[in-house]
Amino acid sequence: MEIRPFLVEDWPAVWGILEPAFRAGTTYVFSPDISEEEARRFWVDTPSQTFVAVLQGTIVGTYFIKPNQPGLGSHVCNCGYVVDEMYQGRGIASTMCEHSQKVAVEAGFRAMQFNFVVSTNTGAIRLWNRLGFETIGVLQGAFAHPQLGDIDALVMYKKFAE
Amino acid sequence: MEIRPFLVEDWPAVWGILEPAFRAGTTYVFSPDISEEEARRFWVDTPSQTFVAVLQGTIVGTYFIKPNQPGLGSHVCNCGYVVDEMYQGRGIASTMCEHSQKVAVEAGFRAMQFNFVVSTNTGAIRLWNRLGFETIGVLQGAFAHPQLGDIDALVMYKKFAE
Repeated sequence: MEIRPFLVEDWPAVWGILEPAFRAGTTYVFSPDISEEEARRFWVDTPSQTFVAVLQGTIVGTYFIKPNQPGLGSHVCNCGYVVDEMYQGRGIASTMCEHSQKVAVEAGFRAMQFNFVVSTNTGAIRLWNRLGFETIGVLQGAFAHPQLGDIDALVMYKKFAE
Repeated sequence: MEIRPFLVEDWPAVWGILEPAFRAGTTYVFSPDISEEEARRFWVDTPSQTFVAVLQGTIVGTYFIKPNQPGLGSHVCNCGYVVDEMYQGRGIASTMCEHSQKVAVEAGFRAMQFNFVVSTNTGAIRLWNRLGFETIGVLQGAFAHPQLGDIDALVMYKKFAE
């Protein structure tokens, strides 16, 4: 699998991966009826960089990286990852997260923060734990799950070695 | 003291309060050289509402309220408060925070989150504790303090009673 920077012509494939994830409303905080334009702004225009994971010529995953805060907090980055439903369970998220940590360190970030990991997304939580992230806080009832009502979201954090 | 919605003509007075706080770079995450336009966008244009605290005709404090996340996280609000340096220690932040909690509950928010309370801002932390906020997480080294280097920032949270 190759991970490379997002190109403008990748958008239809990337949106094809993001849309079902956002519409489901179970792992990302966006409104399930988010428009393609808003999604593109968030995933591609606002971040510092966006990447795609390519397997045998097919885009199977995507992630972005950006500073999590402005100014005096801009040395901590934030990333978001989505893997194509059809390609889950093959270690693609894991490979993307490891890639993003390398990109982050090279860009001079000193830590990575996930602001809002939905507590029922146990696969992701296990994975982030394995890759060195700690749950540093629990936001009680902060996620309005479409089926389960208000459930917890986690703040996860990894400080990079000096 | 009266707390009332921000009016366009309040901006010079509000900026007069915000500017020294932001320039000091010890309590807010913005770059200390933030422009007036960026500050205005953040404090007035982006939030749902902005308020001013008025004491004998003088604006002595200001706060904003906004959803902390989009969509499925938009029932949790975020606020920011700044008190005029000359009027600190008179309970103005406390009064504004209590006011903001009423506004939040009336607007249907179910919790309030502070994403980034600088760990050396002990007066604020004590105050938020007294007003029902819990420190739910510590972001290790997330604030690049101009004098102290990377220090911790706290995530604080208050779930409102049902």
